Amino acid sequence: MAANLPSLPLHNNNNNNGFPASNTDSSLPYSSTIHLDRGDKVALESYWWKMRDKCTVVTKGWEFMSYGSDWSNSACWFMTPELRDAIKRLHALVGNADTDDSHLVVGNGATQLFQAALFALSSSPSLSPHTPINVVAAAPHYSGYPDETDMVRSSLYKWSGDAREYDKNEAYIEIVNYPNNPDGSVRTTPVVNNKYGCEGKLIHDLVFYWPHYTPITHKAKHDLMLFSLSKCTGHSGSRIGWAIVKDKDIARKMTKLIELNSIGVSGESQTRAAKIMEVLCDSYQSLRCDGSKKDSELFFEYSRRLLKERWEKLREVISENGDFILHNKFSQRAYCNFKNESSETYPAFAWFMCKKEEDCGIYMDKKMRVVARSGNRFGSDSKFARIDMLGTAEDEFEEFLDRLSNIKEVN
Amino acid sequence: MAANLPSLPLHNNNNNNGFPASNTDSSLPYSSTIHLDRGDKVALESYWWKMRDKCTVVTKGWEFMSYGSDWSNSACWFMTPELRDAIKRLHALVGNADTDDSHLVVGNGATQLFQAALFALSSSPSLSPHTPINVVAAAPHYSGYPDETDMVRSSLYKWSGDAREYDKNEAYIEIVNYPNNPDGSVRTTPVVNNKYGCEGKLIHDLVFYWPHYTPITHKAKHDLMLFSLSKCTGHSGSRIGWAIVKDKDIARKMTKLIELNSIGVSGESQTRAAKIMEVLCDSYQSLRCDGSKKDSELFFEYSRRLLKERWEKLREVISENGDFILHNKFSQRAYCNFKNESSETYPAFAWFMCKKEEDCGIYMDKKMRVVARSGNRFGSDSKFARIDMLGTAEDEFEEFLDRLSNIKEVN
Repeated sequence: MAANLPSLPLHNNNNNNGFPASNTDSSLPYSSTIHLDRGDKVALESYWWKMRDKCTVVTKGWEFMSYGSDWSNSACWFMTPELRDAIKRLHALVGNADTDDSHLVVGNGATQLFQAALFALSSSPSLSPHTPINVVAAAPHYSGYPDETDMVRSSLYKWSGDAREYDKNEAYIEIVNYPNNPDGSVRTTPVVNNKYGCEGKLIHDLVFYWPHYTPITHKAKHDLMLFSLSKCTGHSGSRIGWAIVKDKDIARKMTKLIELNSIGVSGESQTRAAKIMEVLCDSYQSLRCDGSKKDSELFFEYSRRLLKERWEKLREVISENGDFILHNKFSQRAYCNFKNESSETYPAFAWFMCKKEEDCGIYMDKKMRVVARSGNRFGSDSKFARIDMLGTAEDEFEEFLDRLSNIKEVN
Repeated sequence: MAANLPSLPLHNNNNNNGFPASNTDSSLPYSSTIHLDRGDKVALESYWWKMRDKCTVVTKGWEFMSYGSDWSNSACWFMTPELRDAIKRLHALVGNADTDDSHLVVGNGATQLFQAALFALSSSPSLSPHTPINVVAAAPHYSGYPDETDMVRSSLYKWSGDAREYDKNEAYIEIVNYPNNPDGSVRTTPVVNNKYGCEGKLIHDLVFYWPHYTPITHKAKHDLMLFSLSKCTGHSGSRIGWAIVKDKDIARKMTKLIELNSIGVSGESQTRAAKIMEVLCDSYQSLRCDGSKKDSELFFEYSRRLLKERWEKLREVISENGDFILHNKFSQRAYCNFKNESSETYPAFAWFMCKKEEDCGIYMDKKMRVVARSGNRFGSDSKFARIDMLGTAEDEFEEFLDRLSNIKEVN
């Protein structure tokens, strides 16, 4: 998800008395490459900087000496009860997923949980032990799915491409991802239409189903749902993801994979994730109690406004630029149950199509010194490329817009 | 490594104003099961409790927003420079491994790094793409190796059992583990003697090569060495391991596996691990400067004395008990370059052999309500079982000794 990236981004340059560079006005020389391919959400750093005192976590030297966090929890013995409770509280606040009558599994990011889900769903007794189950997703799909599925060439599962083209008389797992990475489309239903009536299982990747990105139109109740701290609050470096799983046996198998893979998940990160979620929920609770909160103090409102502003600026620049088309499939306005008003989608990524050259990524690199993720990594075409909308601090995003505006002059 | 474990151990019962239960005198009813099969090192909690103020780590809300920690480090872009430096300092202090002219890779425990090593070593262009490479270790070997190797039935590598019996005309990876888990033997050289002259690669698992367990007789300089915080300082819940790798391409492949597996390693845990290592090193440095430190303030001396006391008590009890034999293969006394004196081995595990029943684990459970890890999980026989020497607080260990002493009465 973040490979082949040579230089340190500006936002990590914390030489300002502890103040993140995203809050400073550092200038970016044109010779610097702008990395918009990493999937980071460092633009959200500015919110957490404002909240820094409330979110402080202190860890003492004798804490986290055991592999286990809750041996009595047979669904996931390495998950801390505090994180479990915080996740339930967060979903109850937002209304985006039902955690009742389900089991929570924590992982080192949704990435590890995705592999745990493949393992759990492919080790069903009803499946042939000799044929790997086919894993598919509708293109364009997240670039990590094929690589993660085929990483160690498992005999349990294998990547089988675009779900729309799936036509084998074999069992399969379809990944349903909404809002979709890379294009932001909201496709809540699976697309495989298997004429053979084969056994099909579903993984719902809902890491972007949060109110800063999209209206919360329903409370998701799928069998196996994936979420992550990276995409919700932006804390990618903490490596915390969670799965909400209906079937306890599946949850336990996922836990088994994570046990064999890494013997659990950092206790420090779990504690911090719980704290961050609690602070987030507390701010909405105090709004409801005394109504004194401003929008800028509420995480989803702050993040949504930031995204909205960036999207408006990007659309304006693109409308005057003849080289690219924005190819995101934006949903219609929809009523957001969380905001209690109609609202729009502001995807975490812009999905560019290049009109000038076959390879959009190469064109951006050559003309703008911007690194994007090429469309062919998403099961699509290299004329497309994905650009992070939250991957940089404000100054770098502005510089990106400047380069996009001036591309003809560079020509 | 910690599966099938139903109840919360006493040491996690932190209802004593924040004081870990290991420092309290809580009594353990005989009806309680004692878990000595988990591989935890919670006995070391008492040392870190003493050092709690020096090791405190404060994490602010805006930290760790990016996947990357050091994009300029192409060997491992998610490793923090602070952890890298602390690891080098620790090995320089102890003299157990050479980090010069090598590359460090951080992982979610040595467990994830082991899998990263299998991936890196099995994707060599010289190997057949169709035949999984054989993975072997001399029995008795760590119980995790077979399960972790065959977890998702990779086509790149497969578990092939006891290294001493390896006799295939195929490429192989041999794991050399010293001091050996479960029996503490120090076997520094590989044992495969392949008459076909096949390509053989080595992984040196040195997670127990620290001065509390064994004399430091040499500075290890192998091609690929694994270490972990769990076994060194006892912080198992932090999930921090590291590899020292000679070949940069191998290090990068390991990093790639961890990227696809979990997109890196918790920043919170890396920061804390670095802090703990620094405090450990500082205490030795101040000893050298002013000589004022007592042994109880020095981590390895404290931990070694704790282990020595437990081993002496255990040997005494076993000498009067007719049911078991201690089957550890203790090395001869050897000169420890770290302590500058001759010293003994005190393994992290006791390797029991049962004289009364075929299945040692079942016998322990039935007669003593003690859960051990059965010998057959270590490529050995079920008449053996592994017992944690540091897995419990003092009161639980004493209760274990009491049950062992009174086993005849229970009979």
